[in-house]
Amino acid sequence: MSARVQADRLTDFCTAVFRGAGVPDRVASVVAESLVYADLRGVESHGVVRTDIYLRRAAEKMIDPHAPVTLVRDEGCTALADGGNNFGAYVGAVALERAMERAKRHGVCALGVRHSNHFGTGAWYVQRAVREGLALIVLSNASQTMPPTGGVRPFIGTNPIAFGFPTGREVPFVLDMATSLVARGKIIVAAKRGESIPLGWAVDKDGNPTTDADAALEGAVLPLGGPKGSGLSMAIDILAGVLTGAGFGPSVNNMYENWAEPQNVGHFFIVLDIERFIPLASFTDRIGQYIELMKAEPKAPGVSEILHAGEVEHRLEQTRRREGIALPDKVAEELKALGDRCGVAWPE
Amino acid sequence: MSARVQADRLTDFCTAVFRGAGVPDRVASVVAESLVYADLRGVESHGVVRTDIYLRRAAEKMIDPHAPVTLVRDEGCTALADGGNNFGAYVGAVALERAMERAKRHGVCALGVRHSNHFGTGAWYVQRAVREGLALIVLSNASQTMPPTGGVRPFIGTNPIAFGFPTGREVPFVLDMATSLVARGKIIVAAKRGESIPLGWAVDKDGNPTTDADAALEGAVLPLGGPKGSGLSMAIDILAGVLTGAGFGPSVNNMYENWAEPQNVGHFFIVLDIERFIPLASFTDRIGQYIELMKAEPKAPGVSEILHAGEVEHRLEQTRRREGIALPDKVAEELKALGDRCGVAWPE
Repeated sequence: MSARVQADRLTDFCTAVFRGAGVPDRVASVVAESLVYADLRGVESHGVVRTDIYLRRAAEKMIDPHAPVTLVRDEGCTALADGGNNFGAYVGAVALERAMERAKRHGVCALGVRHSNHFGTGAWYVQRAVREGLALIVLSNASQTMPPTGGVRPFIGTNPIAFGFPTGREVPFVLDMATSLVARGKIIVAAKRGESIPLGWAVDKDGNPTTDADAALEGAVLPLGGPKGSGLSMAIDILAGVLTGAGFGPSVNNMYENWAEPQNVGHFFIVLDIERFIPLASFTDRIGQYIELMKAEPKAPGVSEILHAGEVEHRLEQTRRREGIALPDKVAEELKALGDRCGVAWPE
Repeated sequence: MSARVQADRLTDFCTAVFRGAGVPDRVASVVAESLVYADLRGVESHGVVRTDIYLRRAAEKMIDPHAPVTLVRDEGCTALADGGNNFGAYVGAVALERAMERAKRHGVCALGVRHSNHFGTGAWYVQRAVREGLALIVLSNASQTMPPTGGVRPFIGTNPIAFGFPTGREVPFVLDMATSLVARGKIIVAAKRGESIPLGWAVDKDGNPTTDADAALEGAVLPLGGPKGSGLSMAIDILAGVLTGAGFGPSVNNMYENWAEPQNVGHFFIVLDIERFIPLASFTDRIGQYIELMKAEPKAPGVSEILHAGEVEHRLEQTRRREGIALPDKVAEELKALGDRCGVAWPE
């Protein structure tokens, strides 16, 4: 039971819906592209399902779609951007553009961003840099979902880290990972099925490790690798939040729950011009060789192919670009209703 | 059953032993300091226990203690160093020095290193940068210990990533983590005790997940968080190895097993001058506030204090600086024998 929509038509629809809500063209199209990209790559949680909440944040003045993204400091290989509380994907895209220009000139650019919002998937930024032969590390903080190791309540976000490298092959290396062990969505699925979850995924509301999916949903998801993931999440928050002047820890506001203040999400981009180290052709030769060697390794029982980061998502993207994106009926209905409100027809 | 030695005397002893083996003074003292630092911080696997293998590598011409560390490219905010196959800790220390000088001038420096060796703990570099009010990300590759997700045999290293930030408090934020879920040492301990290990720590020699510690030791340790850790290890290898011209994947040679070729380890340093983003005093205020808030969080059952990355190690370091380092008899005997060979007395 799902509606299947071509990616381009879905992007056009979402763009029109954002425009219908008063979002400037250039902002609307960037945000829509970022959402559809997530759906193409199988990260539905960051896909067009977010259109509604993004628009509600804007309607409540919790997001300012008209704000410019400004560089409050710019010293070439370092810069600090203020997103003016515009949509995160727009803020991130403009900031990355500035960082890429500077990395091409100086070889590296470390650019921090404050006063932003939920910026979608890290992979979306990574592919933009990789297309231009650049390497990218992107970090973002997020509102509270995990306890620090030893804690009970959500205090740190599942702050993502993404790395991207061109490979000279069809599929770039794209690692885009949250610092939680598993997505909360997997626990929701287990709870619905009445199944238990492995120890280590979550704690209950008192901070006890639990295998009970319902208890886990009342508690919190855990960082990957215990103190390692907890430390990694905090390190990301320090660069993206503490260093930029954005929120950090509990002061990154939840977009679903806090209707009094903007989120104040922070991001941090490190863009590298590969050519400043070795020629791009040598780099892609070497990474290509790495991938070939890895794929030639003996495979574990039941494994038909060893994949590098980003391959599964790339294949999904190819299929979905060809065959369209299947949206759950509930999501399609919600989008249609949003379209109806501003006279934008659903692409049947 | 252990010998207790003061850190300074142990450093002096190891320095003298390296010098006795023909290692130049400046190299000997840096390598010795790095090893003792690991013992002080409770990372005994990277401590003075490595003196013997380091010296054997040098004796077999697999390490060149006389080689200079040169910048083969230097464009200010990016640079590429060639370690000349000197000891990793010396190569890393010189490279970091160069990177810090450049970061102070330009705001950021991304510096790659090739032709290096095992460089000790990431934390040792981090504390050097943090002392000067800089933030540091340091990556290194390592010889093969983990299969990629879906693989069977060791193919990627437990490539470490470390982050360091000054906090304006006694204890800096120092996250220094391998990308394996647990250290192989923990599996050795379980095997000796006849205990099983949790699922997810390791695979057996055929690539099957196992809870049998003996089978795990014949197999391989696993990355933290499955594909996340596998991807993170590979991303680190791409920056430290592929991009620098060092070895990567299977071409980072094992220092215990390969006596025909140098290791060709690669490192990657990203040094940030905090002042280019916000004033250092604001940064330390903010990170201090973050730490205070975290410590005030409710604690899980059995937890008396929530610690940030580097606190446990800092406390150990303080204690061991005061009370001395307790070395297992076997390690002390080995060191004494190394001292005897070149007429250096063991510090009783």
